[in-house]
Formats: sequence, C-alpha cells, structure tokens
Amino acid sequence: MVGIDALHYHVPNIYLPISALAEARNIEYPKLNKGLGLAGMSVPDVNEDVATMAAQAAINLIAENKIDLTSIGRIYLGTESALDAAKPTATYVVEMVENKFEPTFGKRALKNCDAVDLTFACVGAVDAMHNCLDWIRNNDTRKAIVIAADHAKYELNSTGEYTQGAGAVAMLLTSNPSILAIDSTVGVATESVNDFFKPRRTFSRSSLLQEAANLLGQELNAENASALLKSSTHRFWGQDNSEVEVHMDEPVFEGQYSNACYTNRIKEALEHFNTQKQTNFLKEWNQLIFHLPYAFQGRRMITPMWVNWMIENGNSSILKSESGIDIPEQNSSDWNAFVKACSKTTAYKTYVNETITKGEIASSDIGNMYTASIFMSLISYLFAAAESNEDLTGESVGFLSYGSGSKSKVFSGTVQPKWKEKVVGLNLFKVLKDRTPIDFKTYEQLQKKELKMSIEPVDLSLKNIGSEENDLGYRYYTA
Amino acid sequence: MVGIDALHYHVPNIYLPISALAEARNIEYPKLNKGLGLAGMSVPDVNEDVATMAAQAAINLIAENKIDLTSIGRIYLGTESALDAAKPTATYVVEMVENKFEPTFGKRALKNCDAVDLTFACVGAVDAMHNCLDWIRNNDTRKAIVIAADHAKYELNSTGEYTQGAGAVAMLLTSNPSILAIDSTVGVATESVNDFFKPRRTFSRSSLLQEAANLLGQELNAENASALLKSSTHRFWGQDNSEVEVHMDEPVFEGQYSNACYTNRIKEALEHFNTQKQTNFLKEWNQLIFHLPYAFQGRRMITPMWVNWMIENGNSSILKSESGIDIPEQNSSDWNAFVKACSKTTAYKTYVNETITKGEIASSDIGNMYTASIFMSLISYLFAAAESNEDLTGESVGFLSYGSGSKSKVFSGTVQPKWKEKVVGLNLFKVLKDRTPIDFKTYEQLQKKELKMSIEPVDLSLKNIGSEENDLGYRYYTA
Repeated sequence: MVGIDALHYHVPNIYLPISALAEARNIEYPKLNKGLGLAGMSVPDVNEDVATMAAQAAINLIAENKIDLTSIGRIYLGTESALDAAKPTATYVVEMVENKFEPTFGKRALKNCDAVDLTFACVGAVDAMHNCLDWIRNNDTRKAIVIAADHAKYELNSTGEYTQGAGAVAMLLTSNPSILAIDSTVGVATESVNDFFKPRRTFSRSSLLQEAANLLGQELNAENASALLKSSTHRFWGQDNSEVEVHMDEPVFEGQYSNACYTNRIKEALEHFNTQKQTNFLKEWNQLIFHLPYAFQGRRMITPMWVNWMIENGNSSILKSESGIDIPEQNSSDWNAFVKACSKTTAYKTYVNETITKGEIASSDIGNMYTASIFMSLISYLFAAAESNEDLTGESVGFLSYGSGSKSKVFSGTVQPKWKEKVVGLNLFKVLKDRTPIDFKTYEQLQKKELKMSIEPVDLSLKNIGSEENDLGYRYYTA
Repeated sequence: MVGIDALHYHVPNIYLPISALAEARNIEYPKLNKGLGLAGMSVPDVNEDVATMAAQAAINLIAENKIDLTSIGRIYLGTESALDAAKPTATYVVEMVENKFEPTFGKRALKNCDAVDLTFACVGAVDAMHNCLDWIRNNDTRKAIVIAADHAKYELNSTGEYTQGAGAVAMLLTSNPSILAIDSTVGVATESVNDFFKPRRTFSRSSLLQEAANLLGQELNAENASALLKSSTHRFWGQDNSEVEVHMDEPVFEGQYSNACYTNRIKEALEHFNTQKQTNFLKEWNQLIFHLPYAFQGRRMITPMWVNWMIENGNSSILKSESGIDIPEQNSSDWNAFVKACSKTTAYKTYVNETITKGEIASSDIGNMYTASIFMSLISYLFAAAESNEDLTGESVGFLSYGSGSKSKVFSGTVQPKWKEKVVGLNLFKVLKDRTPIDFKTYEQLQKKELKMSIEPVDLSLKNIGSEENDLGYRYYTA
C-alpha cells in the first residue's frame, strides 16, 4: 500500500479580490462569484517565483512533519512554469531546502536525492506522483517528496484573466501512508491538441528594428536594418541569430475548446479506467477531486455524466419532477437545456455538496494553480472535513486530472485512519483569510513587472539574477 | 528482469566535418580530432526540430521491430530542447507517430498512452528510463517507449562550438528484454550548480527601444521610450509586460567547471551505488557507457580513478615502468603529471580499447546529443560488437550519466542472449557515412536561421508555425 503520508502548501501572501477584477473589467461580479465560484486570486510577490513557492511548500512539509531530510530519495517537481530550459527548477528547490535545514542536517543533506522536473501542463505533477508511487512500490522503505508548483498568469484583458492564481503543494509519498492510499489503477487518455500552450513567439530581429524605426518616425528598409544589426555589439540587437524567440508566461489558449478537450479526455480516461477495473464512479467514489482552473469547473463538467447516470440508475422521475422537463433523447436539441435544468435540481445540489464542494473551497480564494490545483483541492477537502470534525477514514476519493495539450489521468484512493492528525494543523482557511488584499493598480503593476520592491515580506526570495558572462540569467535565492 | 528490448535512432542527414570548423575557427585539427575524438557534427536541417527527430527515432523503432502500437502504455521523452513551456514535446511525437501508423493501427492508436517530458539537462532521458523500468517492474506485461532527443547548439565562436550535435534515440522497454537487462541499483548524486543552463535573457522593453534609437542615430530618453511603447499596438513593442524574456537554444556555461562537476557527481554517485551494492566497477564492468559531450570525455574523466584502482590492486610497478615516473603521493604537485603520463601507457590504452572505445565511435561522427548521447553510446557499443561478430552475451555494462545543474546517475546492466539479432540491422556506421557534409558557410546560415529551404529531404518535417490568435506558435508537422 503506497500513497500520501503528509502534505503541505504555500500560497503568496497577497491576492487580488475578484470583485476588484470584476469592477475593473466591467464583468458582472455574480457571474464570476456565483457562476464560477471565484472570490480571490493569488498573485506572486515581486521576489517570489515558482522555485520559492515550491521550496516553501516543501519546507513547510518537512518542518511540520519533522521529516529526516536524508531519508528522502526523490524530489520530483511537476510544473509548467519552469525557470530554465535545461536546469530543472527542482534543483533550485533542492538548494533552498538544503540551506534551510543545514543547521539540523548539515550541508548537502539531499546529496543522494534524485531530483527532476516533469512537464505536461496541469497534469505534470500527477505524473510525478504516479512515477514516485511506482518507485516506492518496488521498495517500501523509499520516501519521495512530490511538489506541484505553478504561476497561472494570463494576459491582461484576456478572457483567461479571471482564472489566474499561484502556489504550490508538497506531498510526502511513502508505503503505509497516513493520509491516502492510492490504488494502482490509472485511466489515461492522450490527444495532441492546441487548446492551451506556451510557445515561443518568434520575431525577425531585422523586422523588430524596422518597427522600432517606424515608432521613432524613421523609415528603414530591410537591407539597412541588417547592416545596422551587423554593426551592433548589443546583447540583444547584435546577436547572430536572425530570429528572436520570446518567452512569455502567458499562454495561447481557447477557453471553450479547452473545456471540451478536458471533458473528452476525462470521459476517455474513465473508459480506460473501467477496462482495467469496472467502477461505477459516481456511486462508488465518495469524493471527486478535479483539476480546477476555476472553482466550479468540476461540478460544471460532471453534470451531463451525472444526469446520464441518474437516468441509467432508474432515477428519471426525480430529474423530471425537479427540473420540470420531460426527459429528452440524449444529444437531441433539448438535451443541453435539460442538463442545465438538472444542474439546478436539489438532487444535483445534494450530490455536489456531498462529493465535490469541500474540494472547491480553497480554489475560490486562490484561483488557478495549474499543476497544484488538483492537490490543493485534495487539501481543501481533507482540511474542511477535519475542521468540521468529520470522519473520512475509509472514504474513497476519485481524482479527475487534466493537462492541456492534452492528457487526462483518472485514479482513486482511500482515506487512511491517521488522516486527521496529519491535516488538522494545516491551518488552510485561516492562512487564506489572513493574506493581504491588493488593489487593481498594484495587480496591474505586478503583472507588467513594473514593481521592483516586494509588497509583503516572504521567507524565501529571489535575491538577484546573474548578469555576468558565466552566470547570465542564473537565479540566486535567500533563505 | 526488465530492460531494453529494442532500440533505434535518428540523426540529421547533414553534418559539418570538424575539419571545416577547425579551419574556420583557427583551431588545430589534431587537437579536436586526436585530442577529443571529434570527426563530424550533426546539424538539424531547416525543417527539423527535436520533435521530428524524436518521432523519427520512435518510428524507426516501431517499424523495424514490428511493434503493436496499441500495446505501448507510455511514451516518455527526455529532452532539454523542449519546444513549448506547457505542452510537452512528447505530444507532438505522439501525433506524428499516430499519423505515420494510421494505415496499420487506425486513428489515435496511442489514445491510452501516457506521454510526458522529463527535464534535467543531459540526464533527463535516464530519469525517463528509470521511471519506466519501475513502472514495468510493477506489471510485467507493460511496455514503454523512452526517447532521448536533443539539439546541442552553442553560440557561434563560443568555446562550446565544437561540442555541438543533434539526434534522437528511442528504446522499447519491457520485461524479459532481448538486449539489456537493467539492474535496480542506481547511484545518485545531486548538487544545484550553474555549470551549464539555459536561462531566459531578460531585457527592459524600454531600454531595447532606446538602444534601437541609438543604432538609428537618435537620442531617446526613458520617458519618451515608455510613451512610444504605450502608443504601439505591435505584438512585440506594444506588449504590456515591461520586460522581454528571450529564449535562446544556446546555453550559458563554463566548460572547465562543468567537467569538474561531471567528475565530482560521478564519484559521489559511484559512492552511493557502492553503499547499496559493493562493486569494484573498473574490474567488474566489461563496458563503460558515458554521457559524451565529446567522444573522449569518458576516457579522459576516468583516468585518475583507473590510476588509483591500479595502485590499490597492486599494479604500481606496471604504471611506474610504463610511465617512467615514480608514483607520487596522491594529490601532490606531481600527481596530475603522473596521471597524464599514465593515460599514455599501453596498460591504459588497452583498458580503454577493451571497455570504452566501441561506445565512442558514433559520438565522433555525430557530436553532442545531450540526453541522447549516453544511449547513442550504448548503440555504438552494441553495433560495433555486432559488426565484428563478437559475442557480448552476459557482458556487464556500467552507465555513468551526467546532467548539468547537476546530477549523476550510475547504474548497470547485463547483455542478453538475443542482443545481436536486435541490433545487427541498425546499419549505424553506414547511415553516418552516407550523410551529406555541409560547408562552413551553410553551417553558419543554419545556426543563424537565415535559411528557409531545407538542404536535404527528410521524412518528417515542420510544415509551419501558427500565426493566428488561437494557434500562435503552434507547430504543424507533415509525416
């Protein structure tokens, strides 16, 4: 039996209230709040990045659970916000964690620890977890820390702007886990699509100079532009490459299409799961944990499957009476309106309250955490139940994960007897409540990288970025 | 027993002879050829990228071994040349492989295949392999394809220019493998360092415009630059972000320091290996397979360890008589000169010939393949032995892998009885010999991305890159 023995998290200490975004962008607040479940959106401070957030989550995990750092054989990071194309962000995390615990464990306590980054949009940390679980299955003394960390940043004024957020979750994976045993069955569905991705933007260096000339009121033909570039020794303008490849944190995406891909991959992954282990998941799984780009994504996506399941299980009359609509042929022109009506029935609300809601609470206040969203949803579910003193022992938890580009993984686990003592101290809702709200202007300045001083103090921070020939772009952190 | 059941590769059809580089850069050719073992350097053609190279290696593997595509549960890609920050390059590979074999297996034959990218400089594909082996150990019917693919590109005129190259290796991993059984013991050593990395280069957009003005003979102060940028709707100049982050394929690196990190991590990983399974590796391993940034990296790095081992095993007199030097105290001022003299002894040359040379042959003609180097070295060893009709069955093979940033993994395997029939058809040396050499001017144009038409026909090619709002930067391939 392998799974999650302990978990922790880190979110930035500042956030933008969704009401401020709604007002500035002229969006009806209830549409975001009641419709999508949004209340607040984490924004990384000036000196925070995905490495500091990941490291802080790991440090919290290690400190709170008094983990012997030298016993950790792996630190695997799932992220789509990697800071370097070759050096894994996991190594920056190793460095910060080692420095933090040097007084206890000495230098290089993670010297024999295997670290690596896995990348698959929002599902990369699920991949990291599944691989570490397989590693532990082969030797039950092994221990791994898996971290999911991301900064979900969209372009200002884009349709994705209200689905931003940031933060990290760190998990200790072991055999005989205290919190959640994870089953070995995994349903997988993959299709290469372009619903959401983070490409380089390629520009001709010559045309950039011509456009600059244009801005400056000059005319510059291609030939003269080339000659000027050849004469330059500037680190940008004088580069040999005729093309400039620009990295942007902000994705290229199509929201509706991505929703459809998410739904289709989940259905296919469920089918694949069922070919391995027949499961009536809406009946058998007590809690559904989704990848949540926005808080209500899961409950919105699952409605049609729930309606079908109700009909198949002889509950048509409930749907009919509560929705006031005769049950139409599936995929007929009336089907979508019927499903929408069903989503407002007491029967569906009860289902959502019992199996989904607790996992949405943190997402409402943090927003999208990309790879970390599904694991923060797990924390939210566990912590909410612990706070209200429920007993979850033996509950079965289904995970419906998705990464754009695209892949879903569906799997399940069982809550273990010691879960409560491991999560009750996480203090999640108080931590979220005690964060500092920022105003819209500050948010815009942060997004545009116009601020140079941090707004709130943080424990771990990016100190500076190298500018010498041998350390150009290297990141230095203070613990 | 799990390991490599089949393997294949792809290298670009064009290469730059090292003699041409030596002449153009005024480097003595023997220094590169005799000193480092360099003869040729693969250069990707205009319409090739890491996705096409990876896909072609996988297609060769599948076609030559008549693999049932629907039986493949994983396609894991190790690369440090990923084409997107969120969508894994592995998904582009899935797409091309599915399209290629659609006539045989129908649409979406990899629908339930788990794909992901792993990133840790040159060791990321080793991580991919170890994770897939663990996955197979948990269910011996599982089959995975692991691909290592990279484009090792350095800046023109840089000290790394002669250690470039490109290509991909694809491996079928199964239980009861035909070629190589891989042991479960892995020695790991990690330290976060900046020997080689691929950061973003950050520029202030405003200062870029000021520098452009300067090139155009105008003076532009920061305030006016900001005002001009605010007025622009151009996709580069009019962006909200005050910073421009430039991606470059070329790394920031320090060669000597990186060599030292490589050596230190290998030593630490060997120590870690020995804490798990005591091995006199220089005696017990019949073949050493290294990560090879240049062909002779392994034989150069291992010399001091070999000298120590000879002394410890009572062979001091051989070293003394062949080198003509009395054995100095280790780490004394005379030690390095002694080790260098030992590297020229018949005893060391014999050791190198018997345990290293066969793995270097392909590297000499291809150059650095980053993640794929160590696996191409394995192919080189196996194919050279098959061509000369040796019997490798039962030989033990030690792997000494390294990824900058930094991490080493040391592990071992045993050649299996059916190895020869699986590698004899790889045709490696003929394929390398039949490639088309390019001249130095063409090489420079390719590096600068000045060419728009490919030089040689390729089977898989990048057709175009999206430029619309919803597919900006998305990559379209033709099979």
